[in-house]
Amino acid sequence: MAAIDIKALGARAETMISALAPISSEPGRLIRLFLSPEHRRAADMTAQWMRDAGMQVSEDALGTLRGRVGEGRRLLIGSHLDSVIDAGNYDGPLGVIAGILAVEHFKGRPPVPIDVLAFGDEEGSRFPSTLSTSAAVAGVFEEETLGLSDRNGVTYGDALRKYGKNPADIPKAAYRRGEAAAYVELHIEQGPRLEAANEPLGIVTGIVGQSRWRVIVTGMAGHAGTVPMDLRRDALAGSAEMVLAAERIGRAHEGMVATVGIVDARPGAGNIIPGRVMFTVDLRCMDDATRKAAVAEFEDKARDIAKARKLEVTFEHFHDVSATVCDAGLQDTLAAAIGDLGHRAIRMPSGAGHDGQMMAKLCPAAMMFVRCRDGISHNPAEYASPDDMGTAIAALIRFIGRFRT
Amino acid sequence: MAAIDIKALGARAETMISALAPISSEPGRLIRLFLSPEHRRAADMTAQWMRDAGMQVSEDALGTLRGRVGEGRRLLIGSHLDSVIDAGNYDGPLGVIAGILAVEHFKGRPPVPIDVLAFGDEEGSRFPSTLSTSAAVAGVFEEETLGLSDRNGVTYGDALRKYGKNPADIPKAAYRRGEAAAYVELHIEQGPRLEAANEPLGIVTGIVGQSRWRVIVTGMAGHAGTVPMDLRRDALAGSAEMVLAAERIGRAHEGMVATVGIVDARPGAGNIIPGRVMFTVDLRCMDDATRKAAVAEFEDKARDIAKARKLEVTFEHFHDVSATVCDAGLQDTLAAAIGDLGHRAIRMPSGAGHDGQMMAKLCPAAMMFVRCRDGISHNPAEYASPDDMGTAIAALIRFIGRFRT
Repeated sequence: MAAIDIKALGARAETMISALAPISSEPGRLIRLFLSPEHRRAADMTAQWMRDAGMQVSEDALGTLRGRVGEGRRLLIGSHLDSVIDAGNYDGPLGVIAGILAVEHFKGRPPVPIDVLAFGDEEGSRFPSTLSTSAAVAGVFEEETLGLSDRNGVTYGDALRKYGKNPADIPKAAYRRGEAAAYVELHIEQGPRLEAANEPLGIVTGIVGQSRWRVIVTGMAGHAGTVPMDLRRDALAGSAEMVLAAERIGRAHEGMVATVGIVDARPGAGNIIPGRVMFTVDLRCMDDATRKAAVAEFEDKARDIAKARKLEVTFEHFHDVSATVCDAGLQDTLAAAIGDLGHRAIRMPSGAGHDGQMMAKLCPAAMMFVRCRDGISHNPAEYASPDDMGTAIAALIRFIGRFRT
Repeated sequence: MAAIDIKALGARAETMISALAPISSEPGRLIRLFLSPEHRRAADMTAQWMRDAGMQVSEDALGTLRGRVGEGRRLLIGSHLDSVIDAGNYDGPLGVIAGILAVEHFKGRPPVPIDVLAFGDEEGSRFPSTLSTSAAVAGVFEEETLGLSDRNGVTYGDALRKYGKNPADIPKAAYRRGEAAAYVELHIEQGPRLEAANEPLGIVTGIVGQSRWRVIVTGMAGHAGTVPMDLRRDALAGSAEMVLAAERIGRAHEGMVATVGIVDARPGAGNIIPGRVMFTVDLRCMDDATRKAAVAEFEDKARDIAKARKLEVTFEHFHDVSATVCDAGLQDTLAAAIGDLGHRAIRMPSGAGHDGQMMAKLCPAAMMFVRCRDGISHNPAEYASPDDMGTAIAALIRFIGRFRT
């Protein structure tokens, strides 16, 4: 095996990231939606890189690119090419590029057969769906997805046909059982833990489960000047206590996060006491039982707060996803590969969703995180240094060297 | 003096309130803006009632009606005919009707000369001005007001001309010093204290001073799943603490109220930690020094909260009005009049602004509050019972009987 030149790998990755970056539906900011002309252009560029690295390239019925080397039971490496609106350049493409550069490192003859996969619809920015292309590859695509519409009224099925695909071919996207030995994904961390730990690489222990719900607090609107404090039923003051309760619950459990991202107070005039407030809670945790207990704990607290303030409170749950555990053996192999480079492997759950969630339904799956600046993602300021990207790809190469199908 | 028939007075008041109620720019809800065709119709109906009660009626350059009985130094009784948008029927008209029915009780020959005044622009619903017509009557009208525009781009000056008035005549609206002995206004409470005290009438000790400002809290937006709790700089959680601090300060001082009525969290997505929050605080108190100290106390607390959470906080003050103290002698005379009817006079500050604020710049001023259901005002559900209105008008009649110019 050739010596690994981390600097050179990082520079190659940065060049490829920069080549994909301008492929956007809007000049000046990155918008690369699933099945859009920009998706097509990004896939075409990526397919060429795959061929240049010695891979045979095909594309499935949902537009997922597959670059293949070797025959038989194989290692899958992938991530996505689509983006959020006003995105950064690293979220997704880095994982695809890493697979291509690893295969290139082995001059197209890696020690194990490899498929590099370039998914779409990971971000769910176009249709009210997400991870649908990795779902198809894992054999768990849901037919109903075809009927979903984007904001212009175009259905998923029509967009597919316009992209030159036939929905009837979707089942063929799935791997046969036994064909896929494992799935590995490399992704920017999208959080600040690696930066805080001063390490470039992390190993994902699992992808958190998630509960999301709306809280509706009803009190009594009133004149800000004429209703004395002790006679108020202020829906916003009560909500403020509940927001802090959600934060306390998030803090109280290791690895849990709780976020209130939306708040809407009505009637919303500076001189009127709010009579009705809606806010959202997003609570995530690796342990499903702990998550469910935390949701119940929040609701109990919120009811207590409401009762003490003579408010009413109701809850509307709209999202509930179980946790995905990453394969322990793959995690250890990744850790050994990172150790080969003289780095400490920081183990952490992923708070964001990833294609790995779907791929874990097909075969053992694992993920490696790459440090990103200030933990920022889904933002033009998103950034991973060439050195960190080079180190990550070097670790992937070491992993491939150690991996046995 | 004839016996006072409270039932009959209440029934008359209710009939007159009901006659004014449909005079609106929109069927089905009450919108009666200053200098609108509806203002004209309401003023014409009111002028006829004044004449029927034996008054000589005139109208000043801002459309304020003046119904006069007797000669020389006089008692002024008034309130306003304009409304907020989607208003109740009692806020304003009750005070005008009470003056008319009191004069009628004395068959047009009250023991003291009286002017009943029907103002406009008390609510500030059309132009970004308020109390401008009582300001003119008090001789403190501000010229700049004429240049203010309503939401259709019509200036105050143009609206006046369209109403048939000449802005050059505004100075003539002012009373000469010595001509006005006192001003008394009867108004629904717009709060729940009288209901809580089980009494129909209150005496206003003064109109509170008011500070209003925006608080801008800046943290760091981030992914709700990937940023651990201990590394967050959540602008909304910090704001929640500040909202509760404002509430605690309002509760800690007798007669003070503090309200957060608007909150705006950005970017405002359920799965993103808010990076920037703006909220308003409205703080009112009878004592100006206490109010200013409370504003400073809030800002200190907010800075402490921001510091502990690594947030930034700034304050934008946009409204600051000093308190108006009601005349002590008039308050005592009102209390005696209320006592004549066997009721307890509840003394309380007014948290809302009133024409009395401006009239206090002209002469001793006082106000009587009438119980309203659930403390609701500025709302179609606003309601004062005929019995309570009758009792209030009876107290006003007793007050006139006791009043010496």
